[in-house]
Amino acid sequence: MPLLKSWIDSANSPETDFPLNNLPLGVFTLGGAPRCGVAIGEHILDATGLEEAGLLQLADTPVLDIPFWNEVMELGPEAWDGLRARLTELLREGSPEQDKVAPFLHPMAGAEMHMPLAVAEFTDFYAGRHHATNVGTMFRGAENALPPNWLHIPIGYNGRASSVVVSGSDIRRPWGQVKAPDEDAPRFAPSARFDLELEMGAIVGQPSDGPVSVDEADQMIFGYVLLNDWSARDIQAWEYQPLGPFQAKATATTISPWIVMRAALEPFRVPTPAREKPLLPHLRDTGPMLYDIALQVDLTPEGGQPVTIARTNYREMYYSSAQQLAHHSTSGCPMNVGDLLGSGTISGPTRDSRGSLLELSWGAREPIALGDQARSFLEDGDTVTLRGAALGDGYRVGFGACTGTLLPALEDPYAR
Amino acid sequence: MPLLKSWIDSANSPETDFPLNNLPLGVFTLGGAPRCGVAIGEHILDATGLEEAGLLQLADTPVLDIPFWNEVMELGPEAWDGLRARLTELLREGSPEQDKVAPFLHPMAGAEMHMPLAVAEFTDFYAGRHHATNVGTMFRGAENALPPNWLHIPIGYNGRASSVVVSGSDIRRPWGQVKAPDEDAPRFAPSARFDLELEMGAIVGQPSDGPVSVDEADQMIFGYVLLNDWSARDIQAWEYQPLGPFQAKATATTISPWIVMRAALEPFRVPTPAREKPLLPHLRDTGPMLYDIALQVDLTPEGGQPVTIARTNYREMYYSSAQQLAHHSTSGCPMNVGDLLGSGTISGPTRDSRGSLLELSWGAREPIALGDQARSFLEDGDTVTLRGAALGDGYRVGFGACTGTLLPALEDPYAR
Repeated sequence: MPLLKSWIDSANSPETDFPLNNLPLGVFTLGGAPRCGVAIGEHILDATGLEEAGLLQLADTPVLDIPFWNEVMELGPEAWDGLRARLTELLREGSPEQDKVAPFLHPMAGAEMHMPLAVAEFTDFYAGRHHATNVGTMFRGAENALPPNWLHIPIGYNGRASSVVVSGSDIRRPWGQVKAPDEDAPRFAPSARFDLELEMGAIVGQPSDGPVSVDEADQMIFGYVLLNDWSARDIQAWEYQPLGPFQAKATATTISPWIVMRAALEPFRVPTPAREKPLLPHLRDTGPMLYDIALQVDLTPEGGQPVTIARTNYREMYYSSAQQLAHHSTSGCPMNVGDLLGSGTISGPTRDSRGSLLELSWGAREPIALGDQARSFLEDGDTVTLRGAALGDGYRVGFGACTGTLLPALEDPYAR
Repeated sequence: MPLLKSWIDSANSPETDFPLNNLPLGVFTLGGAPRCGVAIGEHILDATGLEEAGLLQLADTPVLDIPFWNEVMELGPEAWDGLRARLTELLREGSPEQDKVAPFLHPMAGAEMHMPLAVAEFTDFYAGRHHATNVGTMFRGAENALPPNWLHIPIGYNGRASSVVVSGSDIRRPWGQVKAPDEDAPRFAPSARFDLELEMGAIVGQPSDGPVSVDEADQMIFGYVLLNDWSARDIQAWEYQPLGPFQAKATATTISPWIVMRAALEPFRVPTPAREKPLLPHLRDTGPMLYDIALQVDLTPEGGQPVTIARTNYREMYYSSAQQLAHHSTSGCPMNVGDLLGSGTISGPTRDSRGSLLELSWGAREPIALGDQARSFLEDGDTVTLRGAALGDGYRVGFGACTGTLLPALEDPYAR
């Protein structure tokens, strides 16, 4: 698919994340109340304003009057397509409605972004094979790296929806219970091994009430975000047996401010990797299930310059979001509008394509260079920025930056 | 504390779960729209009606016009005490407002019960020492029964709020991926080891934005329910390494229809068991942290008579809900109004006090008698009923029944 040209010049630049082909959805403020917006070039289109003005009608009653995109999700796939078609009509080169739309455009630079959706529940998967192999090798040795179930089901755990925050939110280094192997007893201390995880998040846009097939699951997905699942490795190591990660993953998870709708990614579909063991029929691929999305992690020390510490691609995943969602529903677990599914850390096969510091520094045994500094895990003041885009012919469908700065731990977490 | 006498005779019976001392909160229908109600003897007091009539005012605007108790929780502990004081004033023997209140009483027998709260997020703990020891012994041997962290932190995992249902809801036996140790590859099949778990649930009634102390956590708890965390043991055994239970616990969790407020349980506080190892300061007991609540599990085969298969007590827990909530917040994880915390399975020290069939039948090696039948795990048509009450002098503070019937698995889970 070629670039769709817009009457907004900045949307036609090969550098922008937000050409007319993209039309990602966010929530923004310009000093006042939060409003639903659409990114287009260097601008945000005030979608709530368009609805109020009668230029965008998605349902009989307003659905953009709450500052989340959940009510649009509830309308279902036909309305999602209708939204994209109408926005394209308004913003395409030569649109006769250009003059009516222009007043609803605002420079992105002056806007503050907020959570684009109300997250119902958050599930995080462990579905990148390189990541699972790296972590498993570190903890259990190369022969036992992948658990026996790993090639048969997308392993996941329920996360904490209340801890999901939008890009730009500061992250406070957490306290937690930790115990090193050579210590006799645990201590309560600030995490000393605080990490990032490069992931994609899939947003469930339709509910289920019973098991859904992989194809049905794919149709339920509204869109995707970048996702950084901040992780306290030392807390995790002590707590995770036998019931999995809990407080190690509950401080925060940052998502990009823009939801890229599934339709915008359709031209970039690619197959999952070859299967070492065949999947059971209810989880099998029914076509190309992943997307070719180039991803990178930038790390900026306080007062320093950003350094790209990893480059990888979403196509490295072993399981797609549709397969994860299908598995999630097998038990009859009701899935709801606004559920967020983290892909799992996305690492590639090479050292510079690893999506966490745990892997990049191989458990702090091989610290990475960061300008004139070195890093095994995050230090106070570090800023982590994820970026991602599907690369078309002369344009890119991007997510904007997914960023967060690590603040020092509280001196006394119980002081009020 | 003695029985508080009411002008409603059935509330003064030593047999009722719902004397004036209790005043538990639920949501009911009598054919029409759901309304907030209070159990009193054999009646439900229409609290929404009282608010509409101006007989019960908790805030400047109505808070009982939505069919959940969440808005009352949001008002905070003073309002919770005010609610109980006003209800006591209206319902006590000799109340001058008896004639005004009488029209708002409805026989409980004719009402249908609904979820008493909107569950924000659901966390399930593993904090009963006898249960953890029994399960650990079965799976890892007696020497390694308790994981090393178990005596230091209340181990928990995030569950799935969307799967929490009210007592009386039918439960559909789930499908899932299973693999027996002697099988080469996993299969997708209905769970053959479907189980119950006897638990208490604590309801978080105030939010947090940072770590909270054990005392602060205790003050945040609005009330308690009975909770049956239905569990597919065969799905769990295959999926739970390394990230914990997922689909095995996502079919359903049943709660009692009545929330017993914390204040109603105050007279029944008891200490946690002696600590084998001292807890770190942020988790230490600050007084008697548990409640003396007698619990039992009844199992009724289809068309048969109920058999009480376990009797135990909430005081058998190693960690209190306040300690669990304090631990839950250590990472800075935001806790919200309507969060539900499952205690973990409550087993006592003896065989007949075990709170799951896994333990009662010792992993199907010692099936239990059920009239002229035997049970290792649940069979289609079985009805499980949890009951619980704190026993006062001549009265009981009970939760009503927490019940559910197991329906057969779908023949084809993907047929539409």
